[in-house]
Amino acid sequence: MCRWAAYIGAPIYLEDVISRPGHSLIEQSKEADECKTSTNGDGFGVAWYDTRPEPGLYRDVYPAWSDPNLRSVAHHIRSGLFLAHVRASTGSAISRNNCHPFTAGNWSFMHNGQAGGFEHFRKQADMCVSDDLYHHRKGATDSEVLFLMALDEGLDRDPHGALSRSVARLENLSRERGCTPHMRLSAALSDGKRMFAVRYSSDHIAPSVYYRWSEARQGWAVVSEPLEADETGWTELAAGTFMELNDGKISMTEFTPEF
Amino acid sequence: MCRWAAYIGAPIYLEDVISRPGHSLIEQSKEADECKTSTNGDGFGVAWYDTRPEPGLYRDVYPAWSDPNLRSVAHHIRSGLFLAHVRASTGSAISRNNCHPFTAGNWSFMHNGQAGGFEHFRKQADMCVSDDLYHHRKGATDSEVLFLMALDEGLDRDPHGALSRSVARLENLSRERGCTPHMRLSAALSDGKRMFAVRYSSDHIAPSVYYRWSEARQGWAVVSEPLEADETGWTELAAGTFMELNDGKISMTEFTPEF
Amino acid sequence: MCRWAAYIGAPIYLEDVISRPGHSLIEQSKEADECKTSTNGDGFGVAWYDTRPEPGLYRDVYPAWSDPNLRSVAHHIRSGLFLAHVRASTGSAISRNNCHPFTAGNWSFMHNGQAGGFEHFRKQADMCVSDDLYHHRKGATDSEVLFLMALDEGLDRDPHGALSRSVARLENLSRERGCTPHMRLSAALSDGKRMFAVRYSSDHIAPSVYYRWSEARQGWAVVSEPLEADETGWTELAAGTFMELNDGKISMTEFTPEF
Amino acid sequence: MCRWAAYIGAPIYLEDVISRPGHSLIEQSKEADECKTSTNGDGFGVAWYDTRPEPGLYRDVYPAWSDPNLRSVAHHIRSGLFLAHVRASTGSAISRNNCHPFTAGNWSFMHNGQAGGFEHFRKQADMCVSDDLYHHRKGATDSEVLFLMALDEGLDRDPHGALSRSVARLENLSRERGCTPHMRLSAALSDGKRMFAVRYSSDHIAPSVYYRWSEARQGWAVVSEPLEADETGWTELAAGTFMELNDGKISMTEFTPEF
Repeated sequence: MCRWAAYIGAPIYLEDVISRPGHSLIEQSKEADECKTSTNGDGFGVAWYDTRPEPGLYRDVYPAWSDPNLRSVAHHIRSGLFLAHVRASTGSAISRNNCHPFTAGNWSFMHNGQAGGFEHFRKQADMCVSDDLYHHRKGATDSEVLFLMALDEGLDRDPHGALSRSVARLENLSRERGCTPHMRLSAALSDGKRMFAVRYSSDHIAPSVYYRWSEARQGWAVVSEPLEADETGWTELAAGTFMELNDGKISMTEFTPEF
Repeated sequence: MCRWAAYIGAPIYLEDVISRPGHSLIEQSKEADECKTSTNGDGFGVAWYDTRPEPGLYRDVYPAWSDPNLRSVAHHIRSGLFLAHVRASTGSAISRNNCHPFTAGNWSFMHNGQAGGFEHFRKQADMCVSDDLYHHRKGATDSEVLFLMALDEGLDRDPHGALSRSVARLENLSRERGCTPHMRLSAALSDGKRMFAVRYSSDHIAPSVYYRWSEARQGWAVVSEPLEADETGWTELAAGTFMELNDGKISMTEFTPEF
Repeated sequence: MCRWAAYIGAPIYLEDVISRPGHSLIEQSKEADECKTSTNGDGFGVAWYDTRPEPGLYRDVYPAWSDPNLRSVAHHIRSGLFLAHVRASTGSAISRNNCHPFTAGNWSFMHNGQAGGFEHFRKQADMCVSDDLYHHRKGATDSEVLFLMALDEGLDRDPHGALSRSVARLENLSRERGCTPHMRLSAALSDGKRMFAVRYSSDHIAPSVYYRWSEARQGWAVVSEPLEADETGWTELAAGTFMELNDGKISMTEFTPEF
Repeated sequence: MCRWAAYIGAPIYLEDVISRPGHSLIEQSKEADECKTSTNGDGFGVAWYDTRPEPGLYRDVYPAWSDPNLRSVAHHIRSGLFLAHVRASTGSAISRNNCHPFTAGNWSFMHNGQAGGFEHFRKQADMCVSDDLYHHRKGATDSEVLFLMALDEGLDRDPHGALSRSVARLENLSRERGCTPHMRLSAALSDGKRMFAVRYSSDHIAPSVYYRWSEARQGWAVVSEPLEADETGWTELAAGTFMELNDGKISMTEFTPEF
């Protein structure tokens, strides 16, 4: 299990999410409240958008809590759209290529959850990635393969559909060759303009997702756990929901894998 | 605060202390029971003796729990005398040179504790290291400087006295320029033949140290926390005690800094 | 292109190959003589056999020339059979999982060379790895996939045949989807008892391999480049040759991929 | 010996110096033309100024040529004033704290050169750093200590004087306890508004420094080696010169240590 936090709105410093809040993402790397493994020390990453078409990407294998580069980068870079992640490996190696977010072209993607028994069907999952996108398959996580499947399924023209079809494909592989829980998913992704988030589970335990509008910042935060313990305004995203954030607006639709 | 474990006796695999026991040092890196910070993820190290006069040394900045090199090295190397450590930084940087054990010639040293306010008198502490040994001052920890002071005070001919004099020097610096607690100390050290351990505090909270004779292994383990939760035979080292282990024998004397 | 060195015979310290000779593997990481890229600074690794059935494995992403752990490990570990490698990436990421040697069970494998245009048929190569062995596919190199193919082809019962069939499969993929040179190969591998080496190229440029018997050490060294510049006794392995070293004896057979 | 490149002028992407030119700093990390060690693979760093009073700082221990984080950061960050460095260690450890640039408050500093025999008088050099600044002494290089000495000598109010006095102090230590060459120095530093560079040697071999005005970019580059092999307009800074760049203007004065 991992923790993540994303932001879309008027530009802010990355540190306003990553390191400054009382329960910032770095604090969550040391002690998360709402996940089984409270320590998320197996690497971190941040993808941020600016005037370049592709996001910037900074990922490393160290615990987020002690990395001076991350603190400096977060203190200096401002962005109106970014995704940040701290990792707790569920088995795959500690490697930069297994750190979230993953990026391809203008897209970025990060994930908390699991496809049960993934190591037993990793080969079959890899084979689902198209020839065209296979050069983006650099690591060994279920998260990266889900992202690439979704790109193959048409993330650009139909984010909701592409994600629900790729979740279905991966969940089916888990049902055929893996084990329970077949799919637990909380993910955030972006094409550089819009942000999407999804919360879903094949059983009754979907990983937590919260969101909040900040009037002061004029932006939305979408997170695994609220960034301040005693702050009002955090709403839990209901399980089985797909959310789009765009131009300050938020829209939600039901999320069901298209088996 | 950190966690450590040391062994002297008939040769065993390093993993018999580092990774195999139920509450092995690697388990303690994830979740220690008897220290304030339960996560000890800021690097690790092991110094082991074999037929070479100087110990082997393998240290790295990653969390011990995820390092495949550490697991392989511990699975393959046998030794009759070794020191192993997992670190939780109390301020100084995550760097190999700040990882324990520290070595100089045939000596090795590791430490859990603190000299209160060390950063305020680090310069004065560095100045206490002799010209001859200053090339061994590679990092910025209080632990390394305490080790080098002890070498200057004559570790070779009088381990007890050298350590009590150097603890006094460092504790005095903390009293002059630092803050409470002025000295909390649990340390293990070796010259390649004998092992020494010490537990001391300037206040009433000395970091825990336990020891145990294994009949099966024909060796002593000295540790921050027992390596098995439900194992009998672990004895707590009393605060204010200096312990020597040599030729299967164990001797204890009172430890008081020689101010 | 990379550099490697292997040893089989009476036990020696790893450093006798890795760091002590005048043109040791570490020296070759700084300045190799017989390969296009003289710097081999993209990681290193060593696999050594002892009384355990599986080899020990120590790999890291730093340049070999500056890693104190490697020097210490090589100074302290003795082995009668080991493989050591320094890497110059030809494209795939700098990651421990892309560092040689690769191991699976009692087997170890390292490689210098390339399958031309590999990134264009990496997916097809991955698909060639059997379901049973796919959990060993951790990185993204052509070398690792060649090793796993060879295991699938029966390395245990027929090393020569397994390797020639897997080289043929990979070379064929390069001919179908890749580019020239379709296959350049110098590899060493071991099952913990015997060592094998092969030198082959689909064109006229096979990466160099040399071997030498040391009377003083009572062992064979097989290397990319001689370990001492002015030492007699180094013989170049002819291109298109498969070599087995076992019980102090050496045997050679022609090596042709079984298309 | 190391290589460095600095820029002051209208904002450009860091990559315009670090990775895009034909003989960019990353190219120089692989193969420098004008220094003894052509490989500068022992870490890298960049300090950049933006609207924050203190510079951003990103340093790591890997070779610059293979670090995807560096490429991404350099592709996305724009700055009108930055310092970038690739390191070839002359003895001190490969550690982030030994990577240039060094920063303290609004100042940044990077260096190529040496104070002969530094390891023999590192303690005496450390003792020259004032109590107030000693907490900035995090590594073990002569470069960092020179920077801290210069801050003590009043870099803020008199950059030229402060640097010439601190160079004299360090050169004197080398004359007393070290060896030749007592001082070779090419350094760049900044307070976030102005940039300064200096080239000096106690013997006849001063490390190279070049500078060039870019009309297209409206900015000055100051570098160890020209960023393009066949580009006109690069002027060599004469040995024994101190240079200030400010508001598009450049001024030079003689540089002699104030013994």
